[in-house]
Amino acid sequence: MRSALYAGNSTILIEDRPPVPPGVGEVQIEVAYTGICGTDLHILHGTMDHRVALPQTIGHEMSGRVAALGPDVSSLAIGTPVTVIPLRWCGTCPACRAGHRHICHRLNFIGIDSPGALQERWTVPAEVVVPLPENLSLIHGALVEPAAVAVHDVRRADLHAGEKAVVIGGGPVGLLIALVARSVGADVIVLELDVHRRAVAGQLGIRALDPAADDVAAEVESWTGGAGAAVAFEVSGSAAGVKTAVELLAVRGRLVIVGIHSQPREVDVFRFFWRELTMVGARVYERADYDTAIGLLSAGRVAAETLITHVEPLANAAAAFATLRNGGKVMKVLVDCRETSP
Amino acid sequence: MRSALYAGNSTILIEDRPPVPPGVGEVQIEVAYTGICGTDLHILHGTMDHRVALPQTIGHEMSGRVAALGPDVSSLAIGTPVTVIPLRWCGTCPACRAGHRHICHRLNFIGIDSPGALQERWTVPAEVVVPLPENLSLIHGALVEPAAVAVHDVRRADLHAGEKAVVIGGGPVGLLIALVARSVGADVIVLELDVHRRAVAGQLGIRALDPAADDVAAEVESWTGGAGAAVAFEVSGSAAGVKTAVELLAVRGRLVIVGIHSQPREVDVFRFFWRELTMVGARVYERADYDTAIGLLSAGRVAAETLITHVEPLANAAAAFATLRNGGKVMKVLVDCRETSP
Ligand SMILES: [Zn+2]
Ligand SMILES: [Zn+2]
Ligand SMILES: [Zn+2]
Ligand SMILES: [Zn+2]
Repeated sequence: MRSALYAGNSTILIEDRPPVPPGVGEVQIEVAYTGICGTDLHILHGTMDHRVALPQTIGHEMSGRVAALGPDVSSLAIGTPVTVIPLRWCGTCPACRAGHRHICHRLNFIGIDSPGALQERWTVPAEVVVPLPENLSLIHGALVEPAAVAVHDVRRADLHAGEKAVVIGGGPVGLLIALVARSVGADVIVLELDVHRRAVAGQLGIRALDPAADDVAAEVESWTGGAGAAVAFEVSGSAAGVKTAVELLAVRGRLVIVGIHSQPREVDVFRFFWRELTMVGARVYERADYDTAIGLLSAGRVAAETLITHVEPLANAAAAFATLRNGGKVMKVLVDCRETSP
Repeated sequence: MRSALYAGNSTILIEDRPPVPPGVGEVQIEVAYTGICGTDLHILHGTMDHRVALPQTIGHEMSGRVAALGPDVSSLAIGTPVTVIPLRWCGTCPACRAGHRHICHRLNFIGIDSPGALQERWTVPAEVVVPLPENLSLIHGALVEPAAVAVHDVRRADLHAGEKAVVIGGGPVGLLIALVARSVGADVIVLELDVHRRAVAGQLGIRALDPAADDVAAEVESWTGGAGAAVAFEVSGSAAGVKTAVELLAVRGRLVIVGIHSQPREVDVFRFFWRELTMVGARVYERADYDTAIGLLSAGRVAAETLITHVEPLANAAAAFATLRNGGKVMKVLVDCRETSP
């Protein structure tokens, strides 16, 4: 079978490898689509080489069908459409014992710390396999993982119907957050520098401002009747994003840290005191977030067809990474991993 | 009657002034004790001159008895022991309309933005007067306001019995937070540089570490079985305090910003993401916090006799400020404002 491997030096190779037969407690999945995300780009650029055993198949956003079962696995049937929740936890660390297994001190993120989904057949522990409803197409099913990120972020925000939220950063995660926020009845504005991304937001019916050109503070002031935003999602990973978020929040407003910040940020801690603000971190997802994400995608409330801008065959996986890296008119890039792909 | 006035230039004057007769909706209080806090020191040092109309009587932590009632006030009886919740809100701003009146956009803090309690007779709106139980001595009643700050901080932390909390800064507010945290069943460690303050913590049965000498990270690591602290209260107002708090917190830990930070702080935002931490600001108090504080003081669960280290007569108000400013073996300084004080 074909497998796309990260081989170091910003290189993706396609190799023919034997599929891994499912062992005890494992399931082999015939992969349909695998999405590429910012984390995968970070891996490609070597930022995570300390966690990746080269050469390694990466990828963790996927859909597929059960192809083979390990000797003792009876909870799944061959052919069932599935996705994977790519987390394995130790069960014994303080975080696991406190019930926060998705933040396990020794979390194994499948697709980074162990082989991922950019291959025709992927063998994983049965416990990470999540069935998908038959009415959800496999191409849309590849969005369950990033949608679950967004569901988790919105849940961490404690966002309620009628509240106003600002999403800072209008890439795939930011727009998914905006859509999930809208699904709970919130009003949303996205801040995004890139004109193409603002256009996609517009197609989704989401108002997008350009922080380089628009007077964001004045817009939010008038939009919220002088109160400020109830919630800000910092998805950009930038110092400016954190600063803007803190400035835009209402009394008792909540800032959710979604983006990866490579260095400490200057935070107006006094304003946290003065306005009784809250900042919460949001990392990956819990199982309930997957269930909600699947429900939203099945109901068509996450506009997958608008978000998925590119589908490349597995043979062109390197080009898929390049498309995402080069930016422009690109949002979500999927790799078609089916054996029938060219 | 005598009144202590802040006259600018770090000066406190004692003057004889006619008491203000209570107007419609007002109450005149015969002041017993007025506490001096860090905010009052800031006023003395000119930091808040933009909010204070010189010369002005300051002070907002107090106890006393109702001395006279405005023509329409029937909710209070002459002689009733009382304290004051020194907040007046507008009722119409977005914060007030959202029910967060203690963070009103136009908050009037009595004792800063309008005359305070460092005088023999103080006239205030009846709505800010809070009756005290007869079993609470007036000298201990002067601690209701700072204890309510601590109650509010602990409530914002969502601290539960059995959780472990670190209080960074062992002055009056820090120790009150430690005592309130203990009252809800939490285990507490205080971090404090000053040897005298650590000694007071010791008298209260609270473990205190010296961040300049002790290996705080290792101590908290072993104390919490490797988990980290569930809650950190940043009371020091220092950059180091914020940094330490973030480092000590467990997965899903909560950092409460109590101290005043005069400038933005470098915050390890990545760690908020990675451990799903929360940072919340906590400002003053709400009425429910006063009720809880009165209950704790009445029940002797806040060791007022240990915290109150100095009581100076009103004539020596300037010396009381100097005592607090000079530090050393000082914790809470009260001014005896009774007409019988020398
Ligand atoms: Zn991803
Ligand atoms: Zn674990
Ligand atoms: Zn005070
Ligand atoms: Zn107001």
